[in-house]
Amino acid sequence: MKPLGIGLLGCGTVGSGLVELLERSRDHLERRTGLSPRLARVLVRDAHKPRAVDRALVTDDPEAFFGSEGLDVVVELIGGVEPARTYVLRALDAGHSVVTANKALLSVHADEIFRRAHRAGVSVGFEASVCGAIPIVRALCGGLIANRISSLVGIVNGTCNFVLTRMIEDGLTLTAALEEARRRGLTEADPSLDLDGTDAMQKLLILASLAFGVHPDPARVRVRGIRELEPEDIRAALEFGCTVRHVASADGAELRVEPAFLPRAHPLAGVRDENNAILVHGDAAGQMIFSGKGAGPLPTAGAVLSDIVEVAARPGPMFVPANGQAPPAPAESRAPHYLRLPIVDRPGMIGLIGTVLGNHGISITRVSASLTTEPGRGNVKILVDAVDESTLSRALEQIARLPVLTGKPVVVRILA
Amino acid sequence: MKPLGIGLLGCGTVGSGLVELLERSRDHLERRTGLSPRLARVLVRDAHKPRAVDRALVTDDPEAFFGSEGLDVVVELIGGVEPARTYVLRALDAGHSVVTANKALLSVHADEIFRRAHRAGVSVGFEASVCGAIPIVRALCGGLIANRISSLVGIVNGTCNFVLTRMIEDGLTLTAALEEARRRGLTEADPSLDLDGTDAMQKLLILASLAFGVHPDPARVRVRGIRELEPEDIRAALEFGCTVRHVASADGAELRVEPAFLPRAHPLAGVRDENNAILVHGDAAGQMIFSGKGAGPLPTAGAVLSDIVEVAARPGPMFVPANGQAPPAPAESRAPHYLRLPIVDRPGMIGLIGTVLGNHGISITRVSASLTTEPGRGNVKILVDAVDESTLSRALEQIARLPVLTGKPVVVRILA
Repeated sequence: MKPLGIGLLGCGTVGSGLVELLERSRDHLERRTGLSPRLARVLVRDAHKPRAVDRALVTDDPEAFFGSEGLDVVVELIGGVEPARTYVLRALDAGHSVVTANKALLSVHADEIFRRAHRAGVSVGFEASVCGAIPIVRALCGGLIANRISSLVGIVNGTCNFVLTRMIEDGLTLTAALEEARRRGLTEADPSLDLDGTDAMQKLLILASLAFGVHPDPARVRVRGIRELEPEDIRAALEFGCTVRHVASADGAELRVEPAFLPRAHPLAGVRDENNAILVHGDAAGQMIFSGKGAGPLPTAGAVLSDIVEVAARPGPMFVPANGQAPPAPAESRAPHYLRLPIVDRPGMIGLIGTVLGNHGISITRVSASLTTEPGRGNVKILVDAVDESTLSRALEQIARLPVLTGKPVVVRILA
Repeated sequence: MKPLGIGLLGCGTVGSGLVELLERSRDHLERRTGLSPRLARVLVRDAHKPRAVDRALVTDDPEAFFGSEGLDVVVELIGGVEPARTYVLRALDAGHSVVTANKALLSVHADEIFRRAHRAGVSVGFEASVCGAIPIVRALCGGLIANRISSLVGIVNGTCNFVLTRMIEDGLTLTAALEEARRRGLTEADPSLDLDGTDAMQKLLILASLAFGVHPDPARVRVRGIRELEPEDIRAALEFGCTVRHVASADGAELRVEPAFLPRAHPLAGVRDENNAILVHGDAAGQMIFSGKGAGPLPTAGAVLSDIVEVAARPGPMFVPANGQAPPAPAESRAPHYLRLPIVDRPGMIGLIGTVLGNHGISITRVSASLTTEPGRGNVKILVDAVDESTLSRALEQIARLPVLTGKPVVVRILA
């Protein structure tokens, strides 16, 4: 049995999950891999906080940590950019392979980290950085590496998906659904990173970099959260035979994070609650779907521990993103759309709106009008056929100049 | 750019797909992997048959093949046990890593092959041997290796799934659906391997060996095909809110291949046509699903080519099945069941059957009776609550002794 010493940076939720899993999986891993992984040292901010870890292994001194005997693989579970980045680079420079679950770090500094690992001849395992237990990193960098990937679309934020599922299936408001998510431990202290799409954007940047072998520019990702959706929109989706999901997509070089309507037969429409799923199109493989738990201490720790034994057993370089070429973004992406226009409740409004849409060549397929609780105000909800976004924007600008709207329209793409 | 010489054994459907993909993916692979894979030699049975391969590379002489210069990775796409086994072992002994898509070979000789590879210090890539493009081998031997897998259930035979989908969705007979599959190139010359479950069994043996790290005994797999299902059963499934799939499952050490009813909300119920999907339960990851194209020249060739560059870049040992411990099979698996009993059309039959089932403690949840085209004969279709199979068998034996049945009952498990 070959001992495998783990240096653990950070011992929060996922770190504690890893400590638990290490104990309970030792026999299994020894049998399957011939490796005997155990904690060699743990670096934390507060060494006095009680933890389920041998006190003698815990330190709050980085020099003591990096000077420890018997560190084979360094595992970074601190999160955030600093000091995680500094520690990861230091570990690589010292010749340790590194395993990290840090999407914030990799979505911005992957290139620097992979170059440094390459120079040191060691590996970086980062399966846990995106979609928890789903082995999508190995799929994109391994099993599908011979494929040119044209697009991917995923449900990558479990909190948003849980909230939307409860809004759709139980008719909850966003606030009530979020409270339910909090009760189940599915939210961060600040839920904005989830609800506003930042977390999904970081995962999308990593997924797109793996799919295309490039490091996309975060500034070019179009990011929308789910807060703009009203119960009215959720009901409309159901009325129109759709469900609502928060999706991250890379259509060639065009990266987007946004709420979307999915027809019920869409392969991602059945992904419920806090589950994640990623749909990938490869030129040889065709369409593939990977789904499972995208977060949680044990699923994430399982991905971390799998990476630990794999980088230890096969320390060679992986096919990390480099030198790739993203397929060009579509000239302009065309899609059917859902529009909700808050309007004054007066005869002729739908006629005015329909005429402007028609003048721009936009075909309406469904219309549903309803009153709001405010007197004299209503909502008109419209499905339109495939249209490019600039045409749709021009039409909406023209509608905004009519004496029709009482508020900002909500515009949501419908995925085919 | 590092040249990577491929020695190709066999150049049939998948081999030709590989030759095509090699051409069209060369730029992509060079950029992403730094490797420049090209054919070094091709061994075929008939060297005179016209092929889309440089004539000078083709030989029908194994000695010429193995004596070739510049063989880095040997790719076995002959299929069947011999001569594939002999060639694979010879390649390994000569220090070549091997990539194979051969499920018949691996379902029986995996242990011998992996030991020989280990001794030679080379790798065996076999992603393409099970479920084509779906990177389930990497998932089970890599991304999920820290998980103890408790069970897996999959739709692993695309032909059966296509036939069942057409029977369910279009009301075709098995014969008509099979003819449609043949027109689309989804069948082998002899469709028995698909329809009778042998192909699914071979894949299940490989999947179970990866999941549990053991080499299960083929003789202990319970195998049923789809030929026993009548249009009557398909209609009953729909009437009872289910769909029908041919599933391969490993519930701990209990391996089965059989037709099953799946409630419409079951995660595998939406897997249509020739697609494959595998549902895995891991102790850390929870439930995961992988789905995509399970066969076809290009999807399979994509998996082969991904393996080729990976074994070339990371020649270390993989975590192949060895020393594992399958979780014990459940003492007796309990499940709800569908029964179709061909009966004489006479009042009181359902009462007699229901009484026997009740005497065995078996609860009926749904009954539907219908006449057949034969005068005086009918079918009674019954759903029963979770029951263990031995109790159900005893009840059916007793029913067989009553003056009720006109033929053999059809018994199908309903997956939860």
